[in-house]
Amino acid sequence: MPYFPEVASPIAYEGPSSKNPLAFKRYDAGKSIGGKTMAEHLRFAVCYWHTFVGTGQDPFGAPTLVRPWMSDPDPMRRAFDTLDAAFEFFTKLGVGFWCFHDRDLAPEGADFAESCRNLERLVAAAKVKQQETGVRLLWGTANLFSHPRYQAGAATNPDPHVFAYAAAQVKHALEATHELGGLGYTFWGGREGYETLWNTDMKREREHFARLLHMAVDHARQIGFTGQFYIEPKPKEPTKHQYDSDVAACLNFLREFDLMDHLKLNIETNHATLAGHTIQHELRAAREAGALGSIDANAGDELLGWDTDQFPTNVYLTATIMLELLAMGGFRTGGLNFDAKVRRQSHEPVDLFHAHIGGMDAFAKGLEIAQAIRDDGRLDRFMADRYAGWSGDLGRSVAEGRASLDDCDAYVRSNAEPVRHSGRQEFLENLINEFVL
Amino acid sequence: MPYFPEVASPIAYEGPSSKNPLAFKRYDAGKSIGGKTMAEHLRFAVCYWHTFVGTGQDPFGAPTLVRPWMSDPDPMRRAFDTLDAAFEFFTKLGVGFWCFHDRDLAPEGADFAESCRNLERLVAAAKVKQQETGVRLLWGTANLFSHPRYQAGAATNPDPHVFAYAAAQVKHALEATHELGGLGYTFWGGREGYETLWNTDMKREREHFARLLHMAVDHARQIGFTGQFYIEPKPKEPTKHQYDSDVAACLNFLREFDLMDHLKLNIETNHATLAGHTIQHELRAAREAGALGSIDANAGDELLGWDTDQFPTNVYLTATIMLELLAMGGFRTGGLNFDAKVRRQSHEPVDLFHAHIGGMDAFAKGLEIAQAIRDDGRLDRFMADRYAGWSGDLGRSVAEGRASLDDCDAYVRSNAEPVRHSGRQEFLENLINEFVL
Amino acid sequence: MPYFPEVASPIAYEGPSSKNPLAFKRYDAGKSIGGKTMAEHLRFAVCYWHTFVGTGQDPFGAPTLVRPWMSDPDPMRRAFDTLDAAFEFFTKLGVGFWCFHDRDLAPEGADFAESCRNLERLVAAAKVKQQETGVRLLWGTANLFSHPRYQAGAATNPDPHVFAYAAAQVKHALEATHELGGLGYTFWGGREGYETLWNTDMKREREHFARLLHMAVDHARQIGFTGQFYIEPKPKEPTKHQYDSDVAACLNFLREFDLMDHLKLNIETNHATLAGHTIQHELRAAREAGALGSIDANAGDELLGWDTDQFPTNVYLTATIMLELLAMGGFRTGGLNFDAKVRRQSHEPVDLFHAHIGGMDAFAKGLEIAQAIRDDGRLDRFMADRYAGWSGDLGRSVAEGRASLDDCDAYVRSNAEPVRHSGRQEFLENLINEFVL
Amino acid sequence: MPYFPEVASPIAYEGPSSKNPLAFKRYDAGKSIGGKTMAEHLRFAVCYWHTFVGTGQDPFGAPTLVRPWMSDPDPMRRAFDTLDAAFEFFTKLGVGFWCFHDRDLAPEGADFAESCRNLERLVAAAKVKQQETGVRLLWGTANLFSHPRYQAGAATNPDPHVFAYAAAQVKHALEATHELGGLGYTFWGGREGYETLWNTDMKREREHFARLLHMAVDHARQIGFTGQFYIEPKPKEPTKHQYDSDVAACLNFLREFDLMDHLKLNIETNHATLAGHTIQHELRAAREAGALGSIDANAGDELLGWDTDQFPTNVYLTATIMLELLAMGGFRTGGLNFDAKVRRQSHEPVDLFHAHIGGMDAFAKGLEIAQAIRDDGRLDRFMADRYAGWSGDLGRSVAEGRASLDDCDAYVRSNAEPVRHSGRQEFLENLINEFVL
Repeated sequence: MPYFPEVASPIAYEGPSSKNPLAFKRYDAGKSIGGKTMAEHLRFAVCYWHTFVGTGQDPFGAPTLVRPWMSDPDPMRRAFDTLDAAFEFFTKLGVGFWCFHDRDLAPEGADFAESCRNLERLVAAAKVKQQETGVRLLWGTANLFSHPRYQAGAATNPDPHVFAYAAAQVKHALEATHELGGLGYTFWGGREGYETLWNTDMKREREHFARLLHMAVDHARQIGFTGQFYIEPKPKEPTKHQYDSDVAACLNFLREFDLMDHLKLNIETNHATLAGHTIQHELRAAREAGALGSIDANAGDELLGWDTDQFPTNVYLTATIMLELLAMGGFRTGGLNFDAKVRRQSHEPVDLFHAHIGGMDAFAKGLEIAQAIRDDGRLDRFMADRYAGWSGDLGRSVAEGRASLDDCDAYVRSNAEPVRHSGRQEFLENLINEFVL
Repeated sequence: MPYFPEVASPIAYEGPSSKNPLAFKRYDAGKSIGGKTMAEHLRFAVCYWHTFVGTGQDPFGAPTLVRPWMSDPDPMRRAFDTLDAAFEFFTKLGVGFWCFHDRDLAPEGADFAESCRNLERLVAAAKVKQQETGVRLLWGTANLFSHPRYQAGAATNPDPHVFAYAAAQVKHALEATHELGGLGYTFWGGREGYETLWNTDMKREREHFARLLHMAVDHARQIGFTGQFYIEPKPKEPTKHQYDSDVAACLNFLREFDLMDHLKLNIETNHATLAGHTIQHELRAAREAGALGSIDANAGDELLGWDTDQFPTNVYLTATIMLELLAMGGFRTGGLNFDAKVRRQSHEPVDLFHAHIGGMDAFAKGLEIAQAIRDDGRLDRFMADRYAGWSGDLGRSVAEGRASLDDCDAYVRSNAEPVRHSGRQEFLENLINEFVL
Repeated sequence: MPYFPEVASPIAYEGPSSKNPLAFKRYDAGKSIGGKTMAEHLRFAVCYWHTFVGTGQDPFGAPTLVRPWMSDPDPMRRAFDTLDAAFEFFTKLGVGFWCFHDRDLAPEGADFAESCRNLERLVAAAKVKQQETGVRLLWGTANLFSHPRYQAGAATNPDPHVFAYAAAQVKHALEATHELGGLGYTFWGGREGYETLWNTDMKREREHFARLLHMAVDHARQIGFTGQFYIEPKPKEPTKHQYDSDVAACLNFLREFDLMDHLKLNIETNHATLAGHTIQHELRAAREAGALGSIDANAGDELLGWDTDQFPTNVYLTATIMLELLAMGGFRTGGLNFDAKVRRQSHEPVDLFHAHIGGMDAFAKGLEIAQAIRDDGRLDRFMADRYAGWSGDLGRSVAEGRASLDDCDAYVRSNAEPVRHSGRQEFLENLINEFVL
Repeated sequence: MPYFPEVASPIAYEGPSSKNPLAFKRYDAGKSIGGKTMAEHLRFAVCYWHTFVGTGQDPFGAPTLVRPWMSDPDPMRRAFDTLDAAFEFFTKLGVGFWCFHDRDLAPEGADFAESCRNLERLVAAAKVKQQETGVRLLWGTANLFSHPRYQAGAATNPDPHVFAYAAAQVKHALEATHELGGLGYTFWGGREGYETLWNTDMKREREHFARLLHMAVDHARQIGFTGQFYIEPKPKEPTKHQYDSDVAACLNFLREFDLMDHLKLNIETNHATLAGHTIQHELRAAREAGALGSIDANAGDELLGWDTDQFPTNVYLTATIMLELLAMGGFRTGGLNFDAKVRRQSHEPVDLFHAHIGGMDAFAKGLEIAQAIRDDGRLDRFMADRYAGWSGDLGRSVAEGRASLDDCDAYVRSNAEPVRHSGRQEFLENLINEFVL
């Protein structure tokens, strides 16, 4: 018996003139854009946590979401039902990837050993589902933030016993990811930060966090996991301050602890804006450091101060993301994971389809715009012209480290005042709009 | 003829019961706190730009500040008058240090050569003033953001001619600082960032910025300047995004470009809050990286989104700063530079005295509180107890890199659920308040 | 058997030199300040929701708080146990007032009738407790935001059935408040707003909200409840936008719907800062409109974008609040309700004592500072001098509505440029600090 | 000799496929949309202050903008040149309206009388220009914030002499507006607020501000000016707090001082976002109060905390604005005034054309989308269905004021739990995107 009876068959592409809310209007999986299909470019993933296990609870209200697969009182039966619902959803939606945390796939048991057995059973079932459907695991991760034991951090907990617990949990989540052929493994340190510095030894805590990452890298090598590790920046929430606050903080951390070779970044729009940055900035900063790995595709509300994790529907957002991605040559191991949740009032299962369809259409259109901008070439030419001086004698001598302050002084004294050039921001915004409007 | 006739003689310490607004109530320069005098701990500096050259202009209004020393129509005579006013102020206030930008000390000339000559004349005069008064230069810097030529950046300008101009200016500002015996030299990259990524090659621009810093380091070696270089984080304003956005971004930049040995950080309260961080966080992060150099002592308004550069009067703020500073063992080359400006309505010269006296008293009280908290010892003991587990077998094996994920798994399986410990945030806040209330 | 065995007897005042964390250092209930005791000035209340029913759950984590009174599996027995714990806490802490929502006092039943019976049973028990202890009810309210039926609003729900449900719940909460001799009744419209205007008829929803308030006013008259109604501003969270966003929005609403005579405002610090205002501004705005009723005493974190509801320990905050309160002549029906919660890591019952003691001490000190500033008189004299011109001919003719634009034109033409006066902000901040440092 | 030689003739509509940056791609003035032309719907105005008098100065840098019309050293000749440039620009751009402040049209003179004469001379010249070109004045206003005399407020200044000055200035600005046939007159109280409440009598200041508005209303009646008065909300900047902080605060103020019949609101996007609101919210709130008058069309950067006044190019923004406007039946006296400025790096005159063309195209497309959504009807039907219950018995009895709390109690007891309905936010966002993508 299906959990989504409203959706009889896979969501079809019906084109821009369709008024069917359960059809794609822009996302045509097999359509070729710049030599790859839309599906190959976009590599959409559905997240297990919000989409199947999320409840609609918020700080002021009880769960609202109606989820038929969550009705069985037995936690393990509920977990298997949820797995059924998830793969029904993946295939009806037509996405190629999924992502999960250990504890939303399988329930915490009476003790750690039972938790591990629960996870193994669900992983075995998921493996079968993957084989049946062809859906692949984009990345797995461990939930090291929900349980009370992690109230003061996981790897950064003042108590090494909790560190050990987190490490043990990572071991099994990593092995589960490996068993499922996951292309990556993500660290989001939801409690790896502090509430107050009055009780926090930040230096020590950051060192411990780095230890965990090194231990995970070592374990991966040992078990033969060759997927990509990711670290995911977020500045705050639930903590007052999270150590991985933004791309720069993550890069600094990776450099400081000799981890640049082992981890790339998984970047989320709403985490970027909470840090005061645009997603364009964060993607660019990671890309230029050779560290852009995967993307959590969502949107925030810049007038709200918490992680709203909304579905991305703004085409300026999706076009901007796709421009950075095309500039990088596309994903290698990563994908566009919808780390997004339906609003608390959108409590029916069908709202999950509306939400994902909208996100996929917005990214499909964003991809088309980004490719068109690249094909057009005017934006690239503007940039090349703007920095053309760096190909001249002075520019090269500076960039190559040959010029000294004295050389510059001499140059300035023998030349007139530099000519100013308009930055042409409005012209460029109009240029982008040529492709959007 | 004095510029501050309201203040007949140096500001005196009159103690807490004084109602004289032109007296210190908490700052007693020679008073010993933990083995050093208040003056030795606090190393106050007055900034030249806001205090003597600031006009009160804001984005919606004309200059308001009445400055008798700015009345001469000739720029050079005005500059010498301003120098007189500044040293009168330093000595009447009783501070040991000052800071300047090249262009607020000496006016821009008709061409670069004249600008350099102007600076040299003022430096010579300032050197005499320093000798007469004993006031020392905490640090110097170049203004690479006000002139239109820098509209698109200085070291990060798309045009290498502007880069060269900035580099030439740094050469002379650095030499001026050296001539004046400056203890440090600061880089604040007010335009080193972007307005829009549509016209910006961030990777290239950051590389050029690193080039300038290396060139400055080389030049310092050549001329024998042994002072400390500082870089000053700020996330935005005037730019949409400034590359040195916060401490983490600066450290990442210094690590990436092999500059960690050459620069420390100059950290400002209001820049921290604009970046979404507390000053406590930023100081801690820099200190733990061995990179805390100097402090721009001011305060922002956390409900406003721009750099208000107010004088610091909140004793929680000053006590927190002093705790970090005492934990570091105090300043080596740095000091507390009042990078703060009187409000636009506080247009009389005497308001400058009110403002600085208030800031100095607030820091003096903050120092006393910080020392008392350290002497009391309860806060330190709380921290030691909280992390005590890391001295045990498990903790040491993890911290020293001997434990693997498998070891942690084994440990967890053979032990019960970790015991949770209260973080005691409220207790600790009350403990701090014991010393404040 | 007590729920707080760590606290053997009522918290005592031990004075500033005490190092006992379970003693008052500043709050001396019977101490006279300006002719009233501290207890009479401050009228502290403990809130039932955070303190006894809060769990420590947050958007990323499960409950953490250890609450022995919440262990009984039967909801009604749990409710009675909680009531016992609450009154034990009130009397050991030594506060005179409490506040509650209907649904945190008594659990929701199988249907509305049972919910009402549950509430009646708990109210009867609470009444006995009040008589035994002398603790009084500052205000009651109905929880119209937690249950899923209210997901799209209570009085502002698109479905009138939900409106009716909310109205029925208000009826019983109001009657419960009346039965307990409550001095007030509060409306906080946690869901009275919207998530998106795409599905919202704001005009209609605001009208319905006004209807509910009029119905409550009418019902109060009918049952003889003469307590004060309050409305509580908050701009957002859980909603994207809440209609009662700040004091100005509440006043506009009350004026528009002819409710100014019937409701005053209950103002919370953290709600003010979420709206971008200082608490000083919000209290002043309400006071000047004759509408300041009661205060939810807490503190937020201005660098975080959600309602952290921390305990107020900052003495600048408490002194500022007390200055507004003294300027109003003190509370009539209202009080200082600690709408604050211990941090999620402060999971032990004793942390509740630390938290409240800290808040009470901070307000006691704030009261002393505020009274001292008033007694000193310099601040008041500064204000009187600053506006003295309005007692002159021109000022009076303008203020009394006799002057026209033409009159002003004539005045300006016959007088020189106005003389500017320094706003003396730094001087005034120092003046305040004379009483704080 | 033209000031904009790059633009030989009026900007033409060339359609979406044009790559000419100096052509309209979406704005086709005469195109009929829903029975009116684009020009009639949109009523674009160019603002005098940013576009012709703005300099590019920012808090950290000198003027950058190259403006040939600003080169004459004589202020009055410069003013006439600027007027020439403005009308050249209006006609080449093809807009129907302009807006001005008194002091950007004509320079401040040696005394008030001279300032008035200067204004009269420029008004006379502008009147001729208007007749020659057919361009009309959307609204005029007085600059009561730039001059130092207004440092502590204009109508809210502690000194009645300054109040009188402001009033006299309003008299002449109003008469100038009348002389030029202006359709409206706007009050934006840039300094009508405070920097600190320690020196501010807010109650008195707000009363004085209301006095000024009443005096202006009276004067308008006397001189026969029948245009619409507007008040413009902004929460802060340059002040810490501005009294007209948002739409709700303005409405509260107008209601409190009996001004609702005389003023409508002029609403600006960037002011809305600085207040923490969407422009959609602010327009809706004003419209529902019958108080939406005119719009300052710009865009802010929600990650920056100051008024960036950027040109509006985001089509979601423009479509949302146009939906509110169409729902109101379009402008009566108001229009879309580009209160926007080119970026400081866009220093060439031609950038002004790029900027305005981009804004006009974005609004034209937004208009088309808004009209299409209305014609489609699905959004309206969704809303009607959602609130259908209010046409039933229960709904009507509540809305019409016949139901009591007791009635609601009875209703709830005799009915089952209300049925919840999905809010369908994602579905609705997709619906909007059908018209945007």
